[in-house]
Amino acid sequence: MTPRARLEAAIAAAAAADAAAAAAARRALDGKTKPRGSLGRLEELACRIAGIRASAAPGRLEPAVVVAAADHGVAVEGVSAYPQEVTAQMLGTFAGGGAAVCVLARQAGARLIVVDLGVREPIDHPAVLDRRVRAGTANIAREPAMTRGEAEEALAAGIELADGLVDDGVGVIALGEMGIANTTAASALTAVLLDADPAAVCGRGTGIDDQRLSHKIAVVRRALGRTPVDPTDPVGAIAAVGGLEIAALAGVTLGAGARRTPVLVDGFITAAAALAATRLCPSCGDALIAAHRSPEPGHGAILAALGLEPLLDLRLRLGEGTGATLALPLIAAALAVLSEMATFDEAGVTDAGA
Amino acid sequence: MTPRARLEAAIAAAAAADAAAAAAARRALDGKTKPRGSLGRLEELACRIAGIRASAAPGRLEPAVVVAAADHGVAVEGVSAYPQEVTAQMLGTFAGGGAAVCVLARQAGARLIVVDLGVREPIDHPAVLDRRVRAGTANIAREPAMTRGEAEEALAAGIELADGLVDDGVGVIALGEMGIANTTAASALTAVLLDADPAAVCGRGTGIDDQRLSHKIAVVRRALGRTPVDPTDPVGAIAAVGGLEIAALAGVTLGAGARRTPVLVDGFITAAAALAATRLCPSCGDALIAAHRSPEPGHGAILAALGLEPLLDLRLRLGEGTGATLALPLIAAALAVLSEMATFDEAGVTDAGA
Repeated sequence: MTPRARLEAAIAAAAAADAAAAAAARRALDGKTKPRGSLGRLEELACRIAGIRASAAPGRLEPAVVVAAADHGVAVEGVSAYPQEVTAQMLGTFAGGGAAVCVLARQAGARLIVVDLGVREPIDHPAVLDRRVRAGTANIAREPAMTRGEAEEALAAGIELADGLVDDGVGVIALGEMGIANTTAASALTAVLLDADPAAVCGRGTGIDDQRLSHKIAVVRRALGRTPVDPTDPVGAIAAVGGLEIAALAGVTLGAGARRTPVLVDGFITAAAALAATRLCPSCGDALIAAHRSPEPGHGAILAALGLEPLLDLRLRLGEGTGATLALPLIAAALAVLSEMATFDEAGVTDAGA
Repeated sequence: MTPRARLEAAIAAAAAADAAAAAAARRALDGKTKPRGSLGRLEELACRIAGIRASAAPGRLEPAVVVAAADHGVAVEGVSAYPQEVTAQMLGTFAGGGAAVCVLARQAGARLIVVDLGVREPIDHPAVLDRRVRAGTANIAREPAMTRGEAEEALAAGIELADGLVDDGVGVIALGEMGIANTTAASALTAVLLDADPAAVCGRGTGIDDQRLSHKIAVVRRALGRTPVDPTDPVGAIAAVGGLEIAALAGVTLGAGARRTPVLVDGFITAAAALAATRLCPSCGDALIAAHRSPEPGHGAILAALGLEPLLDLRLRLGEGTGATLALPLIAAALAVLSEMATFDEAGVTDAGA
């Protein structure tokens, strides 16, 4: 199957949330020994997942965290506090199990999939999946990030990855990423897709100062000013100003959506990927769950556009999928409440119907 | 040991947070492969626990959830949406494992301790600890909730319980409660201890309407108007307008604080108990961690008074300890980051020092 055919197949397979299953889960929760709705967002979460799974009783979902990594040519513009070689170094740390997302994935009982979409220097490690499309993007301030064919290839790699995980029993996928300067690419892509001013979507990433933030905004303006980018063509927008890991994560979102598998969105970069996926296929937006609120202004803009409210607000600004992974226990808790709690009838408890 | 002697011993044993241990944990986190502070509140949490434990490396903490139950005479005033018999029915559901907090404690890998401080009709079940002080409080709108001696007895029962759990290897205690009408008692106690107007601390509990809320405020005003309650005498305030489970949870907080064991505060009732504990012993406030934000206005007032910011905001209004139990995975995650993440040196990653 060509990358484009895989992309078209995933879009064709996408299914909207099953409202009947969500309503059945709501009825089941209303019969549990607690005032109705008193578990708040946990109940909403259980119903949302029931809709995604098209099942009133989704049971336990096996979790996986997908961390996609790639380099960004725009790093040469000095938009990040870190040098570009840190992408490959961190890929090594992911493989070695010592990064934050590794620790948190172990805590959550989730398998961790680390995938290289195009780190500049490949690393040879059995724990890193090689899905390299090219050795990092070009500098978007001067030229397109990648060709349209490369964007399709990265998207298809993500779809295939999600498909394989679901085949292997995975029931919920947390998105993560690594790529020095990728908040710059995410800002440019978000500005295109939301028709937003770069100043409204650029933030401090892992911690740049005012001066470097102004420079980052100017770099994004240059990227968007090079040549017109069509906001109604998400693949074209990714090719113009996106990133390889962003394309792959958009693919993971599409692939998961096509398999009725909830997708936990982490911070700004994964949100930009999810946004691109919903522009390719609106119904896959139903599969999204926002895990945490990032301080990046572009993240807030995307959540508002997608109508998502994050589960956590812990002032995380690391990325890697750490926020999405931290939200996995809430998914498990919501589903356990749905499947394990006693009903008023079973427990012989008086229901005030409140 | 008399109840009063046990109370005095716990207060005498209480220790403030160890600033040196917290600072050492901060230094350790700053050496991990991530931009400094980029795990936000997770890092603050790890440092806070290091201070409580007086250890820069607290390791994994065995969690326990203590659910204290008792009845409230004020229920006859019609302040709750539920009839009083629900307290005993829910105690049975806790014992049977079907209540929300049971499901969530299993998810979190926490042992659940259900303790009866004075439900009107005792239930005989091996999973319910009998620490009954009296068969529910008196109606605080008309007379004192209990005698001073009974308040001391319930406080001592909580201290002893915490002490036993710590002896048995428990390292973190989540507070939970059950007692129809206990938000009314918590409102009265909070109004006394914070010198607040009842209207500012009374809320809808498990879901009462406007009319019943007005009535609840009037009932609290009657309770406070009966006779002067001295806000500088927390035991006297508990005896006048508190609850048996509230006294016991204040005791658990004191007992845990005396053993350098973090205490996760759930919603309004447990917060009122924790507030009373800090008035008996200010340094035990250092052991508190606010798990979630309750919609009860009195909860917000207590958090502000104690300087605590909740970890979660999931619109929970069930109580039982559900919010505190849901926060346990965040405690485990914070400590795992501190103990398991690689340092820049170990991982050979370039540190920008950001």
